[in-house]
Amino acid sequence: MARHATKVTRKTHRDTATRTEHDCIGTFEVPAKAYWGIHTARALENFQVSNIPDSTHPQLIKAYATVKKACVTANEELGLIPGVQAGAIRQACMEIENGRWMNQFPVDVFQGGAGTSTNMNVNEVIANRALELAGHSKGDYEFIHPNDDVNKSQSTNDTYPAACKLALIDALGPLAQSADKLAHAFHRLADRHINDVTVGRTQLQDAVPMTYGQEFHAFASFLKSDVAAFEALVPRLAVLNLGATAIGTGICANPEFRTSAIRHLAQMTGLPITAAPDPIAAVTDMSVYVAVSSAVKNLAIHLKKAADDLRLLNSGPQAGFNDINVPARQAGSSIMPGKVNPVVPECVNQCVFSVFGMDTTVQWACAEGQLQLNAFDPVIIHALLSGMELISRAMDVFRDECVNGITINAEVGRRYAESTPSIAASLNEALGYEDAMMIAKEAESSGRTVREVAGERTSIPAEKLDELLDPIALSRRLGQTCRERKQRGGGRRQSKQSR
Amino acid sequence: MARHATKVTRKTHRDTATRTEHDCIGTFEVPAKAYWGIHTARALENFQVSNIPDSTHPQLIKAYATVKKACVTANEELGLIPGVQAGAIRQACMEIENGRWMNQFPVDVFQGGAGTSTNMNVNEVIANRALELAGHSKGDYEFIHPNDDVNKSQSTNDTYPAACKLALIDALGPLAQSADKLAHAFHRLADRHINDVTVGRTQLQDAVPMTYGQEFHAFASFLKSDVAAFEALVPRLAVLNLGATAIGTGICANPEFRTSAIRHLAQMTGLPITAAPDPIAAVTDMSVYVAVSSAVKNLAIHLKKAADDLRLLNSGPQAGFNDINVPARQAGSSIMPGKVNPVVPECVNQCVFSVFGMDTTVQWACAEGQLQLNAFDPVIIHALLSGMELISRAMDVFRDECVNGITINAEVGRRYAESTPSIAASLNEALGYEDAMMIAKEAESSGRTVREVAGERTSIPAEKLDELLDPIALSRRLGQTCRERKQRGGGRRQSKQSR
Amino acid sequence: MARHATKVTRKTHRDTATRTEHDCIGTFEVPAKAYWGIHTARALENFQVSNIPDSTHPQLIKAYATVKKACVTANEELGLIPGVQAGAIRQACMEIENGRWMNQFPVDVFQGGAGTSTNMNVNEVIANRALELAGHSKGDYEFIHPNDDVNKSQSTNDTYPAACKLALIDALGPLAQSADKLAHAFHRLADRHINDVTVGRTQLQDAVPMTYGQEFHAFASFLKSDVAAFEALVPRLAVLNLGATAIGTGICANPEFRTSAIRHLAQMTGLPITAAPDPIAAVTDMSVYVAVSSAVKNLAIHLKKAADDLRLLNSGPQAGFNDINVPARQAGSSIMPGKVNPVVPECVNQCVFSVFGMDTTVQWACAEGQLQLNAFDPVIIHALLSGMELISRAMDVFRDECVNGITINAEVGRRYAESTPSIAASLNEALGYEDAMMIAKEAESSGRTVREVAGERTSIPAEKLDELLDPIALSRRLGQTCRERKQRGGGRRQSKQSR
Amino acid sequence: MARHATKVTRKTHRDTATRTEHDCIGTFEVPAKAYWGIHTARALENFQVSNIPDSTHPQLIKAYATVKKACVTANEELGLIPGVQAGAIRQACMEIENGRWMNQFPVDVFQGGAGTSTNMNVNEVIANRALELAGHSKGDYEFIHPNDDVNKSQSTNDTYPAACKLALIDALGPLAQSADKLAHAFHRLADRHINDVTVGRTQLQDAVPMTYGQEFHAFASFLKSDVAAFEALVPRLAVLNLGATAIGTGICANPEFRTSAIRHLAQMTGLPITAAPDPIAAVTDMSVYVAVSSAVKNLAIHLKKAADDLRLLNSGPQAGFNDINVPARQAGSSIMPGKVNPVVPECVNQCVFSVFGMDTTVQWACAEGQLQLNAFDPVIIHALLSGMELISRAMDVFRDECVNGITINAEVGRRYAESTPSIAASLNEALGYEDAMMIAKEAESSGRTVREVAGERTSIPAEKLDELLDPIALSRRLGQTCRERKQRGGGRRQSKQSR
Repeated sequence: MARHATKVTRKTHRDTATRTEHDCIGTFEVPAKAYWGIHTARALENFQVSNIPDSTHPQLIKAYATVKKACVTANEELGLIPGVQAGAIRQACMEIENGRWMNQFPVDVFQGGAGTSTNMNVNEVIANRALELAGHSKGDYEFIHPNDDVNKSQSTNDTYPAACKLALIDALGPLAQSADKLAHAFHRLADRHINDVTVGRTQLQDAVPMTYGQEFHAFASFLKSDVAAFEALVPRLAVLNLGATAIGTGICANPEFRTSAIRHLAQMTGLPITAAPDPIAAVTDMSVYVAVSSAVKNLAIHLKKAADDLRLLNSGPQAGFNDINVPARQAGSSIMPGKVNPVVPECVNQCVFSVFGMDTTVQWACAEGQLQLNAFDPVIIHALLSGMELISRAMDVFRDECVNGITINAEVGRRYAESTPSIAASLNEALGYEDAMMIAKEAESSGRTVREVAGERTSIPAEKLDELLDPIALSRRLGQTCRERKQRGGGRRQSKQSR
Repeated sequence: MARHATKVTRKTHRDTATRTEHDCIGTFEVPAKAYWGIHTARALENFQVSNIPDSTHPQLIKAYATVKKACVTANEELGLIPGVQAGAIRQACMEIENGRWMNQFPVDVFQGGAGTSTNMNVNEVIANRALELAGHSKGDYEFIHPNDDVNKSQSTNDTYPAACKLALIDALGPLAQSADKLAHAFHRLADRHINDVTVGRTQLQDAVPMTYGQEFHAFASFLKSDVAAFEALVPRLAVLNLGATAIGTGICANPEFRTSAIRHLAQMTGLPITAAPDPIAAVTDMSVYVAVSSAVKNLAIHLKKAADDLRLLNSGPQAGFNDINVPARQAGSSIMPGKVNPVVPECVNQCVFSVFGMDTTVQWACAEGQLQLNAFDPVIIHALLSGMELISRAMDVFRDECVNGITINAEVGRRYAESTPSIAASLNEALGYEDAMMIAKEAESSGRTVREVAGERTSIPAEKLDELLDPIALSRRLGQTCRERKQRGGGRRQSKQSR
Repeated sequence: MARHATKVTRKTHRDTATRTEHDCIGTFEVPAKAYWGIHTARALENFQVSNIPDSTHPQLIKAYATVKKACVTANEELGLIPGVQAGAIRQACMEIENGRWMNQFPVDVFQGGAGTSTNMNVNEVIANRALELAGHSKGDYEFIHPNDDVNKSQSTNDTYPAACKLALIDALGPLAQSADKLAHAFHRLADRHINDVTVGRTQLQDAVPMTYGQEFHAFASFLKSDVAAFEALVPRLAVLNLGATAIGTGICANPEFRTSAIRHLAQMTGLPITAAPDPIAAVTDMSVYVAVSSAVKNLAIHLKKAADDLRLLNSGPQAGFNDINVPARQAGSSIMPGKVNPVVPECVNQCVFSVFGMDTTVQWACAEGQLQLNAFDPVIIHALLSGMELISRAMDVFRDECVNGITINAEVGRRYAESTPSIAASLNEALGYEDAMMIAKEAESSGRTVREVAGERTSIPAEKLDELLDPIALSRRLGQTCRERKQRGGGRRQSKQSR
Repeated sequence: MARHATKVTRKTHRDTATRTEHDCIGTFEVPAKAYWGIHTARALENFQVSNIPDSTHPQLIKAYATVKKACVTANEELGLIPGVQAGAIRQACMEIENGRWMNQFPVDVFQGGAGTSTNMNVNEVIANRALELAGHSKGDYEFIHPNDDVNKSQSTNDTYPAACKLALIDALGPLAQSADKLAHAFHRLADRHINDVTVGRTQLQDAVPMTYGQEFHAFASFLKSDVAAFEALVPRLAVLNLGATAIGTGICANPEFRTSAIRHLAQMTGLPITAAPDPIAAVTDMSVYVAVSSAVKNLAIHLKKAADDLRLLNSGPQAGFNDINVPARQAGSSIMPGKVNPVVPECVNQCVFSVFGMDTTVQWACAEGQLQLNAFDPVIIHALLSGMELISRAMDVFRDECVNGITINAEVGRRYAESTPSIAASLNEALGYEDAMMIAKEAESSGRTVREVAGERTSIPAEKLDELLDPIALSRRLGQTCRERKQRGGGRRQSKQSR
């Protein structure tokens, strides 16, 4: 071990003071100032892989502190830990929940061992901080022991997933908020153009008229369904396995601990936390991670749809669709002067592709459990939290730097709406599909509008034709406008609350 | 078109009788016997890709007939189609629902056009069969027209997804049933071994004792959560967009059609069918396909877990875990005489990998919509239905050819349970983690059991030690047995109903 | 076993004559007519999963026969099999190579066991057919035994991958041919429009002029690079592990067998077959499957690019790019009369998504080997051969039903080329990027051409401006035309050979 | 723009000195100290997404400086830039190549625009630093202009991919080195155990004997094939498109520039750089990124195989395979005292899953190009470089913290080798497969060795049996040992050079 001790010494000791700790492998010098101990020290050595520390995900660390707080309270309630120790441990947990000591969680996010290193890091920091609060020295584990006290009635197999799931619930909040805000940006944009017609396109071919408002509302509808999907995940994420300990048998835990810990955690968090029905199965069931990843991926698909469509609608200025103008954010070319590109939606696309990669990583990690454990939670939670954070910021940038500034080319849209041959669908009832087809074909080949050709070729009166072929009326057959207004109103109220 | 006409003639005409049909492109000779018409004929020409016909998925064809039946009933109710035609159309739909005319749906499952070819194929077969039922000749579209009558108030954009979603609901049934039956096979296996101890393994290292029963019950628990997830998809799949027609505007549809068609479809199917709140968004929102794919993928992950674990537990006979014996199904090697391999779980693994591919295909197709349509529904529904069918059969084979015949090596398991050093966890409370660790280390290095070492090294009385280290008792801390029994009972009842 | 025997009897016996065979599990009645024996019979029972038989991939069966032919010849040369038996076996192999007996390979493509069932099926059919040819009865294995003779010096672990790799080489041929033919279709299209200018678009914004010819040639260039990539795979696929037998040790094989079998196989196939340098590693190294899958995926990406671009360029007729017209193949809408959609490129897209799924399946299967075997070759080869066949047919359809019939709207392209503000890049040298930018901006905002604004705002002489801003000249700066012609010529010659 | 100007001021100005720059959108205050200018400033505003700056990938920045150096040299040679400016620009490039000014590249790696922001950042830093070197002030662009001079004859479309590809070549070096070192660690481990027999396992069932040496050598063979694959990528990565400028037409570039720039770049880098044959196709052809991603993924699959196998072989101590001992790195459980887990291979697995995600991201980005550009290079290069760096470090940790310390349990292996029933394969020649099967079956059911049973049941003399069933001899049939030694020697020499 000499080599490693030297390595650590060189890297982390500014001052030479250390304390000696021991474990089942041997002893190790730990910086005297560190709240973490030997288990963290070894993990620091072992996992020099990404240099991304656990503290990159403060939600996870804070959630772990909350889990430990609920557990120590349950242990105290069941008479398993005396009040003095319990109080000190609880206070240390609360400091971590408040964001203090975040620099004490340096273990690499890529770590073997299903979260044991993170759990032990949390146990050690809580123990040492609690010791300090209780007037003891760091490392004085006879008074408060990381395993025997802080980890009492617990294992990594039950607390780490609990912390991960609470962290995911926590991360879903800002994600939903960003989605909701982006939805409202689309709604505002839609409201401004609720009477501006353009053409809908199916398979990139001119179809029937719609309004810009309808088009932009649809993006908002997508996002709102994502928000609903995130909310629906919370009860699934709140199914925890506390008290199941190693492999779900409950070994080392008082049989009443499970109920007590879950009750305290529910009270502390305000979440609808419940105990997993089959504790053995729950240890290795990764379904909820698959579900979260899928929901985030689905949001990403929706964002891709919006970004792709906006880039298409913005194509031009001469040789494209030219329906809309995304705001100019920067010069687009190092060689073509004056060219401006839709860089913000493109940036959104790239974040989307990164989230798709997240989903692949999560799937692999979820599908590679063996026997009584899936050892790959750490990469799952890292991938999910990173992906959620990235796509959340991408939505904020999308909103601020693009959607809020979009303008439409109303004249272009109107011309499209009037000239689409597919508007002849509106004559199906009067003429039948086959005669309507003839009108459409002639309109297309002659470059005239369906209205013009129908005026000549049919006996339908002019007013009737005007009525049948009025783009605004056609886009309103299902009366979306009212319904949208109402929904939007509701959404606004909800959004106010969540801000 | 001459070339193509020739090609079709050569390929499909056994007898030379044809009828001539026309469309916006021109005319085409259709076999006189065929119930399908020109649109199907052109699609047959255009999509000679996989040679897998639409009829491979009878659920889809039947569901489409049901959708058409509801639509014609709504049209009749609203006075848009006279009773004679409506009745004939309805009867034709019912014949298709009953599986008749399945050979009339020959279009390749890989087809461009968001299902238009399938919709027109359905429209044509229904129209021609209805004509026949009404005493008219095939092709006599003045009386009943595929577009003007059978497709009235509809578009492919609304009916094809409706048929797809009903087909998925239909396919979820046998999938859930296979999962449920496999769960019960695991339950039965677990019941037989509810008191047989073995060791749990975390990170493939010996952990604490559990029973074979607990291990096998966990596989059942996974599957039951999948069944619940499938059931939860039904209401989402039942959100349909009938009456939205092209791009969701409702063009060509009576505003009351939407409500009426959905009411009739709900009555006809007994499903909780509702109308999508934003018809424009609903046209391009593929969320429910992503959700179905993810749920099926999650089932596949669970099956992989079971197959992987069984293969591990079956490893040996001398140089492996040797906990269990999967039944011998065939000689395992062309060169190693007497070798028998776990071929059935391996086959399950391969089906799982195929389902993972399905998920990738679905994701791509769902993420590539443009503007007012996603044109890739056909590959989505083909991938999903194929994947669901494959994994369903894989579960049946898994159950019949493997799980039902598994035996355990009870003595091996008991020896493992007694010899695992990790059982020392049970001494944590009495001795503390650090002293328990010393016991565990000595047991491991000396090759003795923790019970033996603890008897020597601690002052804990023998009876207490026996109690603390009793493997069965340790595996029952959370009292799973009772709970499992109850759940299983419930499951059985549920399963009886679903058979 | 009674149940199973009954099952088989019911399913496959038309006449009741059977013969009894035995293996390490017991005895089994095999249809007297069948060339396959007990191992195949058991596999038929065990793998009732997809109902897709091995014979779906005749390349694989034929390649396996070739491998067996080389092995028996090596065995004969080394004096391990007498000439009579060797001759009969060889003749049976050649019959299979010629496509006879294909109905004797009914095992499901989803089969556990790394190909053992297929190998034994091949061994049995060859043995029984050879027996017949030698005047013996089927099942008279004392004279020619499936394992001791047909499989002599071999195992599934070495011959199955060998057959798979030869089958892949075989399948790469038509794939490359389809790619080459599609490339030539693009070249012909390009040649017709080599002087027709349009605008290039970057990030969907108007960029600088190019010709339609350049645009279409690029698609051909993609495909030709894929053909080259396929050719580069052949030597990698030709690294075989014959003689390595079980796990690569060479057990049961004469040490000279490896060299002899590979020499004979090289002579028989004309392929540059070599022996894997590390036989143990070669058994579990799936790199070449990953490489084939990646190459096919890359082709699919190129096809997606072409299909996507053609759909974009074809968008319209009024509200889109309208650069080109893909041929009308069928009516596009059940509701919008006269609408025609680019269904063929859409169909190509769907095949592409299916190939992307293939790649996922292959990756999973390749990454799940354990210790001395990867048991998942069967799903790998099924996925690869299916994907290659699908994408090959997709290219043929793409060529025949779309690319060959594409026309351009030359006037539209020319107008785009002249009106793009980005053409101001051509003034960078004369004016500097910043002044050129002013010209571009004014052109865009005023709706005039850069040529017009530059004529007014700069002192550059008119002829110089005409020269600087000539779209054709601008598109030819790198003189691609000549180079393309040359390359194309070469390609044509090559293609003639390959037809 | 006021809001944005304020935002920047608040965020980045420690001292208030700014300089005013302008672009096609307007003016902007840039920190006076910054070497970057307005284009970078706007990008900083627009892409506040991941907070990961371009400088995270110094290979990319340095490679870009090299590309610019070659371009300015070509421009100077062709008389397009005077020597004074060229010299200053070149010197600035060399400073960046040497790692100076790395903090001047702060743009987010997730950036819209196909690298335009990075290119302009590079152009601005070079221009301003060159201005400084030439005695001018920053921002004095009349003397040296970022676009007109530093970017002369170039576009982002040609230089950014060039820099990316050089960066990838650069990153392949350490990746190959880590792979090579890990291969040597496996070789050393293998050498130590070249005569220690154990059993090979196929489908997790006991197969025939092999040595630990063979098993570990195979891991090295995998890695060496990866190194070879990386080397084979270099010529493909060295195909560049300099001089192609916007969309590949060569607009704004002297026709001789392409040849000159490529010649200079080849000289400067020592790489076999060539010009892409079809410059238009080359702009959008992402094949080489797909190929790099696939090669890195294949390495990851190999690492997964090694990590998975080592974890299996290390399973135990009582209830597992127990073939080997991976070194104890840390306490494995917070609850099970004394438990030690294979955390380092698990960590490798997690990095592998992350690389699999990388491949998905790259595939999506590569498949989403449109018309004359794929705008998603930035996420491709970020994903690839991050993935390569992660997996490279994972290999170093694997080697140092695991492979170097692995010990074997030679007695366990020998017992396995002797007791495997599959060793009966060695009797096939003497007895035939069927009689050998009987021996194997009896050995297995009676718990005796094949040697023992064969001694009783056959007439083969004892010495012959000892010879036939000698595990070491059986594992050496193909004489790998010698071949491996030679290869390894070659490998060692190569590795010395590369250190």
